[in-house]
Amino acid sequence: MDTTNNGTLVSYRPDIMVMDCTLRDGGLVNNFYFTDEFVKDLYKANVKAGVDYMEFGYKASKEIFNVGDFGKWKFCDEEAIRGIVGENNTDLKISVMTDVGRTDFKKDIIDRKDSVIDLVRTACYIHQIPAAIEMAEDAKQKGYETSINIMAVSKVNDEDLDNGLELIAKSGGVDTIYLVDSFGSFYPEQIERLAEKYTAIAKASGKNVGIHSHNNQQLAFANTITAMKQGVSILDATVSGMGRGAGNCFLESLLGFLRNPKYNLVPIMDFVEKHILKLKDDGVVWGYDIPYLLTGILNSHPSTAIKFLKEKRTDYSKLYQELLDIE
Amino acid sequence: MDTTNNGTLVSYRPDIMVMDCTLRDGGLVNNFYFTDEFVKDLYKANVKAGVDYMEFGYKASKEIFNVGDFGKWKFCDEEAIRGIVGENNTDLKISVMTDVGRTDFKKDIIDRKDSVIDLVRTACYIHQIPAAIEMAEDAKQKGYETSINIMAVSKVNDEDLDNGLELIAKSGGVDTIYLVDSFGSFYPEQIERLAEKYTAIAKASGKNVGIHSHNNQQLAFANTITAMKQGVSILDATVSGMGRGAGNCFLESLLGFLRNPKYNLVPIMDFVEKHILKLKDDGVVWGYDIPYLLTGILNSHPSTAIKFLKEKRTDYSKLYQELLDIE
Repeated sequence: MDTTNNGTLVSYRPDIMVMDCTLRDGGLVNNFYFTDEFVKDLYKANVKAGVDYMEFGYKASKEIFNVGDFGKWKFCDEEAIRGIVGENNTDLKISVMTDVGRTDFKKDIIDRKDSVIDLVRTACYIHQIPAAIEMAEDAKQKGYETSINIMAVSKVNDEDLDNGLELIAKSGGVDTIYLVDSFGSFYPEQIERLAEKYTAIAKASGKNVGIHSHNNQQLAFANTITAMKQGVSILDATVSGMGRGAGNCFLESLLGFLRNPKYNLVPIMDFVEKHILKLKDDGVVWGYDIPYLLTGILNSHPSTAIKFLKEKRTDYSKLYQELLDIE
Repeated sequence: MDTTNNGTLVSYRPDIMVMDCTLRDGGLVNNFYFTDEFVKDLYKANVKAGVDYMEFGYKASKEIFNVGDFGKWKFCDEEAIRGIVGENNTDLKISVMTDVGRTDFKKDIIDRKDSVIDLVRTACYIHQIPAAIEMAEDAKQKGYETSINIMAVSKVNDEDLDNGLELIAKSGGVDTIYLVDSFGSFYPEQIERLAEKYTAIAKASGKNVGIHSHNNQQLAFANTITAMKQGVSILDATVSGMGRGAGNCFLESLLGFLRNPKYNLVPIMDFVEKHILKLKDDGVVWGYDIPYLLTGILNSHPSTAIKFLKEKRTDYSKLYQELLDIE
């Protein structure tokens, strides 16, 4: 098959890769309390579905966070991951996330030769980019693939963003720069413009660009494929969109869209039938709802909306006024 | 305020108009059994929200359909509408839909001077365009604004579509041509291309273009604003996306996006709180779900998915195989 670098709706781009973040972003919904059966089945489903990366969770500091307060995927101990994947003799690569200021990376990120982890992603805010670069370079030196995910760029002005991207571009320790729509506030035309900016800077320095979207305005999937059209190649998604607040791009939609025959939607649908429906029946809540639409429109952190829904409030107009007061 | 015809994300285009189809497309979910209180409150909410048109339902033939089998908005008798709106002394215009072959338009569409209806929209498949034009010209002659909504264009080849659009363009009886994504199968880049085609033909003949989208792939809102960017000016939406199968573009998202200060999201959120939450509690079901994703991806009518969900089935992979068999 002729697959040039510009995919059409019939052909495909071989550089596209899919990252399943169900455990990591979904873990923010249930404090990372997933059963081992859930995690094992998700791993198997991802392998069968041709997903390229699976993120198991955070490498959070046990000095900062109390191990008793969270499921094990908040910390992603090497043995915990091996308990699921063994030596991971598959094509699926394994990822973990580290947050600037919330990880003991020097100690907790071990040499890659002793680990089944392939990729270490570092999340940071714009002012933490120098710290994120230090962490990425440390991981790179230990043998890992690396990315830096700049969060909340919807709050960042163009000049600061350009400067931040240039800093990352200069570092030999970063393979991928992530465009992150933390608040689900971006419209496709904004994503188009940002993806253009990110890919221009990244490609000039031999790096890839990834996208991580949120579904506050039901635009997560649309924004993901819009970014892809601009040359972004690593696409984050979660099963049934499971993730904080309004959740993420649905892995089901994304796999249904991609034309590379290595991808297969069926194992993911089977996983939904077996595990996600139960999770929802058990009262685990995420996904599009008016409160998240409002924080998306107002470019705000979803925390106020999460609290509103936990309290079973439905006075949306009052929430809207409260959010306008915060702005 | 300077509002040129090209809106930005800060300014607005004064030609944009919003059409609420909650009763009409939502009526396909509950056989048009809405309480009068629901309809009156929706009318008031739309007036307060600055919505431009409200579609009350179908003008279906009482020879073909049994009046006892449906709520009154399947037929939209003049007295039924007047029972809600009186003389409609507001800026909100009133719309009804007629389906080719399912309406006694000569008898049931009365002279506009005797009606509170402003707009008659005619829905047709590609091969019914001549019949739709006859109906639109009849309505135009009686004094109404008119549109032709070509359904299921995702099944139509380019040549037939061009020919159909040219036929409509030549008719003096049609004010607006509608781009309809009946199966929720279009991606934004396809909508972009189609919207370009529709607006080029429509503008050359002094007509407007509207868009009516479905949410099978959670792209209804994205496709609506994508079409708008290409010059489409009449935007269909429903409260909380209520509509057949996966439903439609959410009116809440659309009003939150539009910058014209005449639009106000608050009355619609209050309506959701009072009426839509109750409807959902009562077990009325619509909205994105895997079965609709599959019919969307496969460009199929949602009926198979609707049946699957009514039977409370969850074997998605089996449905997928069944749908592939139908294709």
